[in-house]
Amino acid sequence: MGRNLVHKILENHLVAGELEPGKEIAIKIDQTLTQDATGTMAYLQFEAMGVPRVRTKLSVSYVDHNTLQTGFENADDHLFLQTIASKYGIYFSRPGNGICHQVHLERFGVPGQTLLGSDSHTPTAGGLGMLAIGAGGLDVAVAMAGGAFYLPMPRVVNVRLKGRLQPWVSAKDVILELLRRLTVKGGVGKIMEYSGEGVATLSVPERATIANMGAELGATTSIFPSDEVTREFLRAQGREEVWVELKADPDAEYDEVIEIDLSTLEPMVAQPHSPDAVAKVKDVGKIPVNQVAIGSCTNSSYTDLMRVASILRGKVVHPNVSLVISPGSRQVFTMLAQNGALADLIAAGARILEATCGPCIGMGQSPPSGGVSVRTFNRNFPGRSGTPDAKVYLASPEVAAATALTGVLTDPRELGEPIEIEMPKKFFIDDRMILPPAENPEKVEIRRGPNIKPLPINQPLSQSISGPVLIKVGDNITTDHIMPAGAKILPLRSNIPAISQYVFSGIDPEFASRAKAAGSGIIVGGHNYGQGSSREHAALAPMYLGIKAVLAKSFARIHKANLINFGIIPLTFMNEEDYENIRQEDKLEIPDVAEQLTKGRELLVKNLTQGTTFRVLHDLSPRQIEIIQAGGLLNYTRNKAGES
Amino acid sequence: MGRNLVHKILENHLVAGELEPGKEIAIKIDQTLTQDATGTMAYLQFEAMGVPRVRTKLSVSYVDHNTLQTGFENADDHLFLQTIASKYGIYFSRPGNGICHQVHLERFGVPGQTLLGSDSHTPTAGGLGMLAIGAGGLDVAVAMAGGAFYLPMPRVVNVRLKGRLQPWVSAKDVILELLRRLTVKGGVGKIMEYSGEGVATLSVPERATIANMGAELGATTSIFPSDEVTREFLRAQGREEVWVELKADPDAEYDEVIEIDLSTLEPMVAQPHSPDAVAKVKDVGKIPVNQVAIGSCTNSSYTDLMRVASILRGKVVHPNVSLVISPGSRQVFTMLAQNGALADLIAAGARILEATCGPCIGMGQSPPSGGVSVRTFNRNFPGRSGTPDAKVYLASPEVAAATALTGVLTDPRELGEPIEIEMPKKFFIDDRMILPPAENPEKVEIRRGPNIKPLPINQPLSQSISGPVLIKVGDNITTDHIMPAGAKILPLRSNIPAISQYVFSGIDPEFASRAKAAGSGIIVGGHNYGQGSSREHAALAPMYLGIKAVLAKSFARIHKANLINFGIIPLTFMNEEDYENIRQEDKLEIPDVAEQLTKGRELLVKNLTQGTTFRVLHDLSPRQIEIIQAGGLLNYTRNKAGES
Repeated sequence: MGRNLVHKILENHLVAGELEPGKEIAIKIDQTLTQDATGTMAYLQFEAMGVPRVRTKLSVSYVDHNTLQTGFENADDHLFLQTIASKYGIYFSRPGNGICHQVHLERFGVPGQTLLGSDSHTPTAGGLGMLAIGAGGLDVAVAMAGGAFYLPMPRVVNVRLKGRLQPWVSAKDVILELLRRLTVKGGVGKIMEYSGEGVATLSVPERATIANMGAELGATTSIFPSDEVTREFLRAQGREEVWVELKADPDAEYDEVIEIDLSTLEPMVAQPHSPDAVAKVKDVGKIPVNQVAIGSCTNSSYTDLMRVASILRGKVVHPNVSLVISPGSRQVFTMLAQNGALADLIAAGARILEATCGPCIGMGQSPPSGGVSVRTFNRNFPGRSGTPDAKVYLASPEVAAATALTGVLTDPRELGEPIEIEMPKKFFIDDRMILPPAENPEKVEIRRGPNIKPLPINQPLSQSISGPVLIKVGDNITTDHIMPAGAKILPLRSNIPAISQYVFSGIDPEFASRAKAAGSGIIVGGHNYGQGSSREHAALAPMYLGIKAVLAKSFARIHKANLINFGIIPLTFMNEEDYENIRQEDKLEIPDVAEQLTKGRELLVKNLTQGTTFRVLHDLSPRQIEIIQAGGLLNYTRNKAGES
Repeated sequence: MGRNLVHKILENHLVAGELEPGKEIAIKIDQTLTQDATGTMAYLQFEAMGVPRVRTKLSVSYVDHNTLQTGFENADDHLFLQTIASKYGIYFSRPGNGICHQVHLERFGVPGQTLLGSDSHTPTAGGLGMLAIGAGGLDVAVAMAGGAFYLPMPRVVNVRLKGRLQPWVSAKDVILELLRRLTVKGGVGKIMEYSGEGVATLSVPERATIANMGAELGATTSIFPSDEVTREFLRAQGREEVWVELKADPDAEYDEVIEIDLSTLEPMVAQPHSPDAVAKVKDVGKIPVNQVAIGSCTNSSYTDLMRVASILRGKVVHPNVSLVISPGSRQVFTMLAQNGALADLIAAGARILEATCGPCIGMGQSPPSGGVSVRTFNRNFPGRSGTPDAKVYLASPEVAAATALTGVLTDPRELGEPIEIEMPKKFFIDDRMILPPAENPEKVEIRRGPNIKPLPINQPLSQSISGPVLIKVGDNITTDHIMPAGAKILPLRSNIPAISQYVFSGIDPEFASRAKAAGSGIIVGGHNYGQGSSREHAALAPMYLGIKAVLAKSFARIHKANLINFGIIPLTFMNEEDYENIRQEDKLEIPDVAEQLTKGRELLVKNLTQGTTFRVLHDLSPRQIEIIQAGGLLNYTRNKAGES
């Protein structure tokens, strides 16, 4: 029986378990990456493990989220990250050097290796044939310390691409089509493995766009084969030596198969407020637009921005549109500056932002009240732009650029003759803004600004759990709902006591004070609870506020892992009607919870307010139960270290 | 008797009064400019006057302050400004098109004309031979409505420049030398008129740097002759037709004369925390630096940034330094992108920001805690950078670039061979990001976001003034102290009820609540009260909080005018010992205040708490007394309109 690509890489990295869907496996991690908004916590956790130097093949710390520096906090975090990287053997990509996923693809990714990143869009490196997975910072810290990464073995879905994209149709439209078909829950528990004749027609940055936004399907990761196109890309990056050929066996088996005929795709757009609310641009119609934003880890490559520059050259943005562009990396930015494309963009009226995540994470460039923003980004959850009533559409760079010129949502096919952008034979290579670790780490003093607070540590699991339902929410609650980001809250990422004040603040400003008053409490959610970003703050801050368990209809993968990592029990309803019966403020109890967890899959929950009982399920592995009992992964890891 | 240049221009524009120092004059205003942080109020005030279209030769509305857009407020303000400009006959320079003073110099300034701007650095246009004055938004609104601008006739100081600058010494060092000699109070009540053989050795942008930072001397404005250098600059901007020759008569008389030998100057730096704490770079020594910031209306011209690019070319910023660069305008930005200099800057590791004020107004890029930042800006007041304990040094682009490479404050003469940057024969000219007013203004609908609140209007002066001393402060209090700016507070500039919560918040967080509780109160200050920015919010917000009078040892010009404009009485101590005797919380009373104001220069004040009396002085003109009695300039203007 032929093996698929995912199985081949997993087998090479398997530390424990079997490749059987749903069963827990442990894999060796070759590389890690962090960004600053999740990184400060990850490195505090790494420090707490007492390991003198990272044990990965490569670890890189990026700064791309918190770069507006509207107070001292960001710059203090940068200094902390720079010094801790230097001391512990980690490469440090300086502020302004680019978005982690773009830079990693350019300068570090290796086909066939595993990459664990404390950012949900880590799968971007799947465009290069890496098995790249997003996780909470604590999982990344464990991997840096040499520990394995545990995950339930995903189902492997084969996405077969045939044909080739028509002019003005782009890689973004491929992943939007998948989101249209599968929804934001469609990839949960799955890895998307691309194959077929269409793959060879896509460049590495195009594959990266598709792999990147596989995160919005809820998929564990996405991966493309490593072929001649990959080799060309790596050669142009001066890194051909890391290339290996990687592909599935001709008779490989898969858990599911999906087929997409690239030649039938048309320009698409994800409408407010979900990445899966996808329609054809021509069907949505010419709605007036206030802002166009181009960039993010999804669509800020050299070829993406060269296409935009070609469309805008000699023209000027519509008077009603503010066009902002953030290049993906210093490599991209320099090349655009060298070849004149940047001059074309500036002359056309584009507002050029730093090579960072920027508006994609609500870090500036919020649209006007009730405004419409067309963005090349990956998420359009309500409020994420920083403007609560803004309407955000996700689209390709071609759609975005055409729209910037006309002032209304525009199908780029109206622009006429297609444009051809050549992949460079050689990229601009200059890694001087990536600092290698210190040669004398003992001399490095770690800089800790006043906003960098010690890590809160949970208590071991108590005999019983009890407390009020502090909030009851519906389906598809994102980590942006749980722990909002944006320009005001992101600078607090290194300060859990401060940031925990904002848990659920967008939908329930009283949540934090209610939780604190209760001392102990439970969250009730619907399907796909915790989708979106990998931020472990969405578990860590609720833990700090006394949350003991989350009862939901289903969970998003990374968030569920984060809950376990911080000792909060993720439980699903056995009968979904029980979700309907629970009311906010009901007092619940899970008696003898440790015993119930180890006894079987079902747990009894008492609703003390209503005088009823109902049952919930857990699917924790024995290891995960131990983690919960210890009060989280950090305690668990320390306990293990103490035992050995 | 020969006339100086200032007198020639004033005589051409005089509406009332005589050119006798200290006496109130009124002048006709040819051009106005606003920026967004002061502009929203100015246009609300203009609207309140009921004039259908501006009556100036030219009015321009710029957006350069509030461009981070960390919430909906900024973009809403931009839409308001864009629509109101279109309706009332004002040119609108779109966000990203550049810093008001740089763009105005490039595209609009006319030698010999008067310019009134709602920004304290409006005198930048003095580099072009304009008489350009900063004022509160309400004064600018009156000028747009066709009204004259009133000011006390300044003394005219002749600054005679001889010799020429040595290599690596720059225009910035000329104005730093003047600040060293004269201090931040040295220009109060004066206009600096430059002449001498040295003038011809300075380009228009260099002259603009000097005129710009004349604001830090407290000067009313600064002005250079309009000569062949001016003509060349205007020709290269495609505007030679507006050139006229302007110079003082050979035997012109002045109130004072200062001489500077350019050839003796060395690279200088203003040390924390005042622009007049000036020393030679070589004497300050090689202090370690965390951040270098290049840009602002003082030093972001094409030649400034070309010099920086030449210094950085092929090198890389020091690992401990974050280098941020904001180009002055889209013209500068495009030219740097076209000629490869921008690629050099990016490759060297510079973080490129939008063509806006940015970090100069604390709008992002705050240094780390306790950090040292070397900036090409014009102000280094404590806290203005957004980091309360940061230490900010002001220097030339050459010092800044050299420092970025070495990581320590560096005299650029250490770099060796001097660099020569040619002034362009032709600048990149493209005004498509400057929107002309609508041809059918009646069709323009003004967009008013929810953060744009109606203008608060003061009551007419009451019989007596009484209330507690709500705060007692020392010398050189800046408008940054009174009404802080920065990334968190600036977005509230269109919302007086919200922003008034922050009056004095940096030095006394309880001030606003104390003022509100008191209902009516008085501020006591030292010398040079209200120096710095032109923001009328530093008068408007205290007025909203019930402030009736400010007693100080002396006042900065623009702030004093703003106080009068909003009906707050500026009074100076007759005996400075009385300042010493007053305690915060003392209850004061100025009985029969209107009568006292009209009777003479002295007013009696009762200290009800201490049971004492003392005397204060006013120097208000009869017109200003009428304004105070009406409760401010807007009421006064409306009353006059009602009478006629």
